[in-house]
Amino acid sequence: MIQPNVPEIGLPRVVIVGGGFGGINLAKQLKGAPVQVVLLDRNNYHLFQPLLYQVSTAGLETDSIAFPLRGIFKHQKNFYFRMAEVTGVRPAENILETGIGELHYDYLIFATGSTTNYFGNKAVEEHAIGMKSLIEAVQIRNYVIKQFEESLLLNDAEEIQAKLNFVMVGGGPTGVELAGAFAELRKYIMPKDYPELPVSLMKIYLIEGSPRVLNGFSEQSSQKALDGLHKLGVNVILNTFVKEYDGETLTLSNGEKLKSKSLLWAAGVKGVPVNGIPTDIIAPGSRIIVNEYNQVKGYENIYAVGDIAQMINDPERFPKGYPMVAQVAIQQGVNVAHNIRLIAKGQPSAIKPFKYKDLGSMATIGRNKAIAEFFGMKISGYFAWIVWMLVHLMSLLGFRNKLVVFTNWFYRYFTYDRGTRIIIKRGAANIVKLRQTVQ
Amino acid sequence: MIQPNVPEIGLPRVVIVGGGFGGINLAKQLKGAPVQVVLLDRNNYHLFQPLLYQVSTAGLETDSIAFPLRGIFKHQKNFYFRMAEVTGVRPAENILETGIGELHYDYLIFATGSTTNYFGNKAVEEHAIGMKSLIEAVQIRNYVIKQFEESLLLNDAEEIQAKLNFVMVGGGPTGVELAGAFAELRKYIMPKDYPELPVSLMKIYLIEGSPRVLNGFSEQSSQKALDGLHKLGVNVILNTFVKEYDGETLTLSNGEKLKSKSLLWAAGVKGVPVNGIPTDIIAPGSRIIVNEYNQVKGYENIYAVGDIAQMINDPERFPKGYPMVAQVAIQQGVNVAHNIRLIAKGQPSAIKPFKYKDLGSMATIGRNKAIAEFFGMKISGYFAWIVWMLVHLMSLLGFRNKLVVFTNWFYRYFTYDRGTRIIIKRGAANIVKLRQTVQ
Repeated sequence: MIQPNVPEIGLPRVVIVGGGFGGINLAKQLKGAPVQVVLLDRNNYHLFQPLLYQVSTAGLETDSIAFPLRGIFKHQKNFYFRMAEVTGVRPAENILETGIGELHYDYLIFATGSTTNYFGNKAVEEHAIGMKSLIEAVQIRNYVIKQFEESLLLNDAEEIQAKLNFVMVGGGPTGVELAGAFAELRKYIMPKDYPELPVSLMKIYLIEGSPRVLNGFSEQSSQKALDGLHKLGVNVILNTFVKEYDGETLTLSNGEKLKSKSLLWAAGVKGVPVNGIPTDIIAPGSRIIVNEYNQVKGYENIYAVGDIAQMINDPERFPKGYPMVAQVAIQQGVNVAHNIRLIAKGQPSAIKPFKYKDLGSMATIGRNKAIAEFFGMKISGYFAWIVWMLVHLMSLLGFRNKLVVFTNWFYRYFTYDRGTRIIIKRGAANIVKLRQTVQ
Repeated sequence: MIQPNVPEIGLPRVVIVGGGFGGINLAKQLKGAPVQVVLLDRNNYHLFQPLLYQVSTAGLETDSIAFPLRGIFKHQKNFYFRMAEVTGVRPAENILETGIGELHYDYLIFATGSTTNYFGNKAVEEHAIGMKSLIEAVQIRNYVIKQFEESLLLNDAEEIQAKLNFVMVGGGPTGVELAGAFAELRKYIMPKDYPELPVSLMKIYLIEGSPRVLNGFSEQSSQKALDGLHKLGVNVILNTFVKEYDGETLTLSNGEKLKSKSLLWAAGVKGVPVNGIPTDIIAPGSRIIVNEYNQVKGYENIYAVGDIAQMINDPERFPKGYPMVAQVAIQQGVNVAHNIRLIAKGQPSAIKPFKYKDLGSMATIGRNKAIAEFFGMKISGYFAWIVWMLVHLMSLLGFRNKLVVFTNWFYRYFTYDRGTRIIIKRGAANIVKLRQTVQ
């Protein structure tokens, strides 16, 4: 029989569910606090999601944007990690239910992030590809390269077109960055790798429901991003939604139809609350309602931070809660850690409410092209691109990952090449067996 | 309907099956020759197999030892690549049968390499893990880390032991390098990542049927390798074969039993000839018998190079044919290319028989420890280790891969860390769908 086997060490136990930005910053800030920290995650690594799109477009190796969670906390004595899927919670008993058994907690923090939101469109959900996990990114890379390889084997123009039309849905940073990266694949890689396929056969679409891309940015920045995408040859379709998709034909809200085998969905995310959270404290977008201390409504010792939490303590600026971005998760994680530390030290009256410090936003469109807004400044072009790279490099966990990502960028800048365009697929019979064991 | 769609360009067509060491060197040497070169491989990348063991032991990222085949030949005008599985050949018609349709050839070269040889032991084949493909290496990494994570959840000593006993079979370079890497995982990583598990719980076994490890090397080098492995705490069992394995219990030829969930098989390889090759020209080890020009016995325009070919033209030194190593494949590929070039130019009488130039052998046991023999010299220790690294770095294809591998080695040397110890597993529902499409 398996069980979590987390030892009792005579300290209150803080259980953190999720090793994303919120969870790891919370756990880090509890270093040396008089508590036992238990981190649970279904994966054994922290994923640097902002660079996922580069993995899916053959620009970075998979392993360089993932960092082993145990590596982050190797010097933290009060820290325990267990790889586990959390399935439910019984707040009355302070018990968390997981795939490896039940676990008692004194403080519980949900930092479970978000998943792709298809807004109830089952047909799209079945056929589109999300962009939230490492395996999705690798599979996108495999899938995209396969479309090119297979196009060579076809003679029917319509079939080839469906394979070489790539559609991104959602004009936020992920959609924009993805569309830009596809455009660069077409510009720099396709002519070299597939001289047999005319470059004009490959088309890139970016579909956005609102009147502009990057609508979290200023209008001026949105326009710059749009210009940049146009220059790269991306077909940007604004004010338009996806209505239907059957894996081959895409129907838009304006009635237009598009042939495409590849619909990459970056149009939204939603929380995934576990069983046991009362439904009346779950807000639209499946986020858990929390107070200004990130305490889940109705509970003193259960918290939620980051994407999964909906906190409305600044209703003028953020009437629907804070944006679902890394900065919010990090800052909430840090704040909750400080508060738990105070409570554990017997100073519960000293705890502080969360205050969001907006450090700015950035998006890159491609080589030498980015948009950044911070401290009241709006920059774009080469300088913004350098800033974008520096900020992402610094935020990446681990010296090795920084080095490998820098190496890849350095190489790509001078060669225009994307090195990791390989298809890793399963073959041998004993792998099937292994997979069953590993899953 | 799909078909290879390789255009007729009015030149004799050379079809190469397999993008390993033999295939790519052959194709490279045909640059500018008056022939059309068509390379087929089931993968779209060349795999640098000598470093596979580092991927499976979390020392290198998967993508850094694979190089896209199209990238190698981007400046070669007469070159065509198709990703395809070859299923058979009809020599009388000069037709190759593949998963993407039939293909006519004027010259055909099998450079299909080898696969893991379980010597007919079905039980072992079912439960052991091979070490020949990139996906196997990734799966080994996933699997090994999972054994550690799961050990934490168990209380039964015997169950834990089975998870933390790692058994390598085969004392050649792959087995030795793998055992050494596991020993380093235990020494440098386990105490940091799993302070809850006593290091003594992890045991590493290397099982070899002959009286010494590295038996392709001199006795002196074998002894040095054995000493190195002992120092690292590897249990080396010589003169012993694996008799049975059911996935949990291993029975050796001396009657001893071992509990282990991980049997890594590096005890041998064999060829995989396609349908249509007459069985009477298939030698033991499933290699195709070729003459000194690498021509398949009985055919003028069909060749085999590398592991799949058995050539006995130096019976004193190599009575069973040349060893199944990269050097032979590379040199045979180059020689066949020169001969085909001569034939295509109308000088068939000028073709040269293959002559093997043994450039030496190397194996690394771990940090600062390697064995190398070349040009009559035998070296070991630090200097051999530096040579080992330089030779492997230089042999790796592509500047980016060299840079990334060097970065990883540089980092590991100074930190004793292994960065890529992440488990990439499948999760979300739409990935299942994607996988079906991709496979």
